[in-house]
Amino acid sequence: MASYQLYTFWRSSAAYRVRVALALKGLTADQHTIDLDAGDQYGDAFRTINPLAAIPALIVPGHPPLTQSLAILEYLEETAPNPPLLPPDPLGRARVRSIAGGLAADLHPLLVPRVRAYLTTTGGFDRAALRAWQDHWFTTGLQGLEKRLATDAATGLYCHGDSVTIADILLMSLVVVMRALHISVSDIPTIDRIVGMCETQDAFARAAPLQQPGAPPA
Amino acid sequence: MASYQLYTFWRSSAAYRVRVALALKGLTADQHTIDLDAGDQYGDAFRTINPLAAIPALIVPGHPPLTQSLAILEYLEETAPNPPLLPPDPLGRARVRSIAGGLAADLHPLLVPRVRAYLTTTGGFDRAALRAWQDHWFTTGLQGLEKRLATDAATGLYCHGDSVTIADILLMSLVVVMRALHISVSDIPTIDRIVGMCETQDAFARAAPLQQPGAPPA
Repeated sequence: MASYQLYTFWRSSAAYRVRVALALKGLTADQHTIDLDAGDQYGDAFRTINPLAAIPALIVPGHPPLTQSLAILEYLEETAPNPPLLPPDPLGRARVRSIAGGLAADLHPLLVPRVRAYLTTTGGFDRAALRAWQDHWFTTGLQGLEKRLATDAATGLYCHGDSVTIADILLMSLVVVMRALHISVSDIPTIDRIVGMCETQDAFARAAPLQQPGAPPA
Repeated sequence: MASYQLYTFWRSSAAYRVRVALALKGLTADQHTIDLDAGDQYGDAFRTINPLAAIPALIVPGHPPLTQSLAILEYLEETAPNPPLLPPDPLGRARVRSIAGGLAADLHPLLVPRVRAYLTTTGGFDRAALRAWQDHWFTTGLQGLEKRLATDAATGLYCHGDSVTIADILLMSLVVVMRALHISVSDIPTIDRIVGMCETQDAFARAAPLQQPGAPPA
């Protein structure tokens, strides 16, 4: 029996991050699908598990749910340190956390369902305006990161050096959303190269949205 | 001479977080004002320091700038661990990071100047629509956090237990923005109480926006 319980949804970028980290560390979790399209997150059953109605939620037996994907990744790093997903030196760790934080805090929040819902109802955005919004933030966000990665000697085969870190997990979690929205961003060769590297790893492949229960046929 | 160089702006919520953390840990930094209203962040002078044109940027002598406020806070925690701003146990650390991450990633990004600029130009939001947007996210974000804090036994005098953590720094960094925008959120008694506790601490008072160089008269 797996010791963790993970509440997840096939399409969730934040849940994907936790699935990748668990797989990279060789950990398993019993996965429970919370269908965000059906509103399962607001149902009484899930509210008793996580009153905040948010996934991912990772349950360590006997404890309140862990929430927020980056906080969960840090927890896994502290409690299951091998293989490491952060470099050993504080400056390197700060760089990885900065890349990850930029994606998690500056780009992804603008693209989530609740923001999309506000913009297309109260905000009066039509389909084209929403698309322009998504295009704008993906383009500025990823081209900004490209500039950073391309000009920094600390970039290696992956975002930081030659092994996978939390920064790569965050990058890939945005790339899978971008693909689902059929958006492409040009002139990001370093990012494209790193994405290609991640795709060679089984942990990323297994965590992919279309591989999850409840996903539509590819 | 201070060993750190901090690039900051009086009104920046993210720079405020770093100022508070430095003060709590008894560290000093030479502060350099980057006037975001004047576009200093895009000037060649600052671009040579941080090509990403973002503050806060903390320079540790001889190294590339550290960016992203939460990554900087984690760096300070690792290199200057006293007083601690994270609890000692991994589950407690995960809770603090989850609260901080929720504010940094789910609430604050929707309120930053570049998003405001997009909404009021391309997005077609008038003054009232922008105000409704700000009200909506502050209200849902802080009332959600209130529910979490009020119902969790791990909440103490502060967000986690009886000493200041990164969660309190993030909370206060949003409160100072909210006040600057003259927004108030009702029915958040636990948050109001914690804010009152933080305000008794000199580190928060000294980091306050209106105490910084370049701030308008109170």
